[in-house]
Amino acid sequence: MKTRKREGLAHPIIVASRCRRRVKPDGLSRKVLLSVPPPSLADNRADRERVAEGLVGNQVGLEIPLDILREFPSVLRQGNWQVTATLGRYRDRWRLAGLEPGDTTARHFGLAIDLGTTTVVAYLVDMGTGRVLDTAAGYNAQIALGEDILTRIQTGSAETGLLSLREAALVTVNGLISQLAQNNHIPPAGFAAAVVAGNTSMIHFLLGLDPARICLAPYSPAANRPGCFSAGEAGLAIPPNAPVYFLPGVGSYVGGDIVAGILASGLHRRSEISLFVDIGTNGEMVLGNRDWLVACAGAAGPALEGGVAGAGMRAEAGAIERVSIDPDSGRVSYVTIGGDKPRGLCGSGLVDSMAELLLAGIIDRSGRFRDGRRSFSLVPAADSATGRDITITQTDLNNLLRTKGAVNAALEYLLESVGLPMQAIERFYAAGAFGQYLPLESAVTIGLYPDLDRRRMVRLGNSSGEGARLVLISRRKLREAEELAGKITYFELNASDVFMQKFVGSRFLPHTDLSLFPSVREKFAKRGLL
Amino acid sequence: MKTRKREGLAHPIIVASRCRRRVKPDGLSRKVLLSVPPPSLADNRADRERVAEGLVGNQVGLEIPLDILREFPSVLRQGNWQVTATLGRYRDRWRLAGLEPGDTTARHFGLAIDLGTTTVVAYLVDMGTGRVLDTAAGYNAQIALGEDILTRIQTGSAETGLLSLREAALVTVNGLISQLAQNNHIPPAGFAAAVVAGNTSMIHFLLGLDPARICLAPYSPAANRPGCFSAGEAGLAIPPNAPVYFLPGVGSYVGGDIVAGILASGLHRRSEISLFVDIGTNGEMVLGNRDWLVACAGAAGPALEGGVAGAGMRAEAGAIERVSIDPDSGRVSYVTIGGDKPRGLCGSGLVDSMAELLLAGIIDRSGRFRDGRRSFSLVPAADSATGRDITITQTDLNNLLRTKGAVNAALEYLLESVGLPMQAIERFYAAGAFGQYLPLESAVTIGLYPDLDRRRMVRLGNSSGEGARLVLISRRKLREAEELAGKITYFELNASDVFMQKFVGSRFLPHTDLSLFPSVREKFAKRGLL
Repeated sequence: MKTRKREGLAHPIIVASRCRRRVKPDGLSRKVLLSVPPPSLADNRADRERVAEGLVGNQVGLEIPLDILREFPSVLRQGNWQVTATLGRYRDRWRLAGLEPGDTTARHFGLAIDLGTTTVVAYLVDMGTGRVLDTAAGYNAQIALGEDILTRIQTGSAETGLLSLREAALVTVNGLISQLAQNNHIPPAGFAAAVVAGNTSMIHFLLGLDPARICLAPYSPAANRPGCFSAGEAGLAIPPNAPVYFLPGVGSYVGGDIVAGILASGLHRRSEISLFVDIGTNGEMVLGNRDWLVACAGAAGPALEGGVAGAGMRAEAGAIERVSIDPDSGRVSYVTIGGDKPRGLCGSGLVDSMAELLLAGIIDRSGRFRDGRRSFSLVPAADSATGRDITITQTDLNNLLRTKGAVNAALEYLLESVGLPMQAIERFYAAGAFGQYLPLESAVTIGLYPDLDRRRMVRLGNSSGEGARLVLISRRKLREAEELAGKITYFELNASDVFMQKFVGSRFLPHTDLSLFPSVREKFAKRGLL
Repeated sequence: MKTRKREGLAHPIIVASRCRRRVKPDGLSRKVLLSVPPPSLADNRADRERVAEGLVGNQVGLEIPLDILREFPSVLRQGNWQVTATLGRYRDRWRLAGLEPGDTTARHFGLAIDLGTTTVVAYLVDMGTGRVLDTAAGYNAQIALGEDILTRIQTGSAETGLLSLREAALVTVNGLISQLAQNNHIPPAGFAAAVVAGNTSMIHFLLGLDPARICLAPYSPAANRPGCFSAGEAGLAIPPNAPVYFLPGVGSYVGGDIVAGILASGLHRRSEISLFVDIGTNGEMVLGNRDWLVACAGAAGPALEGGVAGAGMRAEAGAIERVSIDPDSGRVSYVTIGGDKPRGLCGSGLVDSMAELLLAGIIDRSGRFRDGRRSFSLVPAADSATGRDITITQTDLNNLLRTKGAVNAALEYLLESVGLPMQAIERFYAAGAFGQYLPLESAVTIGLYPDLDRRRMVRLGNSSGEGARLVLISRRKLREAEELAGKITYFELNASDVFMQKFVGSRFLPHTDLSLFPSVREKFAKRGLL
């Protein structure tokens, strides 16, 4: 796993993924070198027809936009009748996205963009080899307009608010693009195509689509499959006729980022039954294999983002990210991000803490302190950066329990909907930042993750960005993403009594039925907790 | 023939044509009424997918532009889930050009535009019936930037000049569109598609394409087949996603206006050999039938536009348009445009004068006054509006003779190129304003037109506008126009010694070989001129 620190970014944004796949480059753009016969009295066809004929052999339905046609006479003569055409793929046809003098086929770049609620990552991709040449990451400038999605949807439901959100998204994305251009000496015309993966709300904001109904029953957004727009339409700072493809989503809460993640995992192509989980402020979950796919989503609560916990904080420098508690001495060891003096507790530290408190016998399986206390001190005031004790409270534990309960309830809901027991899950994929940073053992211990052979538990890293890259460089993968999005059956948990019932009943650590967590049971046995 | 006088326009611009054909409406745009099921928890697909599904049944490769997608949520709800989609045809696919609440299928309008060097005519077409509902005509505002094409090409070869020419063309066209919209109470969003027919230079100016090489050997323009652009790209003041199709041209001097004219005449579908002639400042000529088509073009000279003749003037009020001379008394009768006192002589009056002078024995077959005089008075000073004699001079006759000679030479060049004698021509089509107004008998008498049975001589009126209308309302006709343009073999006369030789030798009235003009020979015989 490769992480990257950017100026002004304490949070190590995940920019690489574990599942880089090789595909034959056949992507969203193509560069073609043309040797055009110069005009003569015997052949005085027009410039347009000359270029079109050079392209038509392998392209059907080629579209030549007016602004590029205007450049034909000068580019053809500047290149002495040798020119490089950049073609962008728009669904079932090609559009000429650029014409350059001479042979520029060796420099052919695309962008894969993971547009997250909190962070945005842009990958510079060599369209010839499919490889990532560079990465830029930053916080979504929309944060200033609302920390969480719900606030932003409310903002975006008014026209001026939507304009501001769109502007903020474009400022962020275009800032990253310009960073990549500068660092890699790519001229403004140098990007041939882009693919964006994001959740349904983020895509609505970026495209200026009314998001109001994303959070209003019956949760029918403006678009789940926006498809492909020109960069000019979409507002991206790459050549205006370059195609910008948006990964298709499934519903209001299962967006293109999840479809991209599934695509990157490849679970939709295998017979084994897999569970894909992406937990953030919202949690999304997909269960299935090559024959069927079911999905659901819901608010996971802010526990993992450190938003509510007493000493909670974002995963920034000074956040405790790993915790262990010696069962005998009760002594706490911890690791902070960046090795700084501890300032608070981020999501992964919280999960570790709960698991360690459980295994140390300090809390019981219902998440309560056995001795009735209301908090537990992880770091004494003397050792902390704030000069105050860093403690984990009963409220912190209850919040995390609620998140875990929501994830468990959603999983049980999905399993029940396809009539399978939990043991049927053969592989587990953890996507996104939390999937990357959450301690696997602890997540299983508290029952947030299923108890599988650890070799069958895969951290995908930035699978949303990786899915975008695959679609960028492979039209086969693009079709696969669209088919896959169409195959997912989405269950709307907001509307389900069954889910609520399961949610209420799923707050035991790791689960009411301990037999579903054999490795945790074993740990309990070792520690005499059974 | 229907003519129309517009405010500020003395010249009766031809707006109607003789060859209005019926075709089943299947044009460049389509309106579809959609009843979309409203969303529910059981079916909460997005607005986009709801509309796309309603359209996808009969459309493949439908494109939904971002600006229209943005209107989906409000339009769907405003129309209470009944909406009218306007689809524009772009080559092999449909693009959504508009979405309106409710059922607006009964109001479906398109525009056929004849973009001439001097005059521009816009036809408002009912896309349901194919009928012309209204017409607007005006002078091309580019005249202020250069009266003739060559001056404008020079102006347009500099970037700022090209911008001015484009602006002038758009001001003219958009002015006519707004006139049609106002007079017919059509809202700005009410136009679904447009087709433009114009010569190669006019299309270059309108689209902002570098025209420099149109008049430089080897006469290879930027585009002969610009194809279809969105109104937004092209700059037309109709909805930005409405398609604007440009009739394909053949070369620098045989443009989309001529292809439109051929299409309107239907000569390309019949076995009989036809000659199509469009004479203005430039003259274009097409010879052929359904199996083959040859064309050429050249400067016809300003004689017919009254630009050079001593008493010459444009075909405006007070211009003498018909002349007859009594062979016995030498008395002149004449008709003026608008019935006003005569102010000068326009092209049709000049042709009539030459024929009548010839038949009255006043000039000989080489176009010279028999008695050696240098001019002939048509109207004495006392009867004229200017207070001066209106005369026709030897110079006037020589200029017209040059025009006639150029037309003859071009025709002979074409006939020779396909190995046919003049007698092989079975039908004659006169296109454009001059074709409409030139007196048929006199044009044959001086040898400008071939000597055919008069029932086989057809005035097409504004065949360029009519061809545009056909393409607007019929995709079959659009394909026909493209095939037809591809079938025409163009001969570049500028590069031909043979043409020059014929030109020099073709100044006899009506022709060196009188047997080619049997009806004129008969007139000569009657008058004792043989």
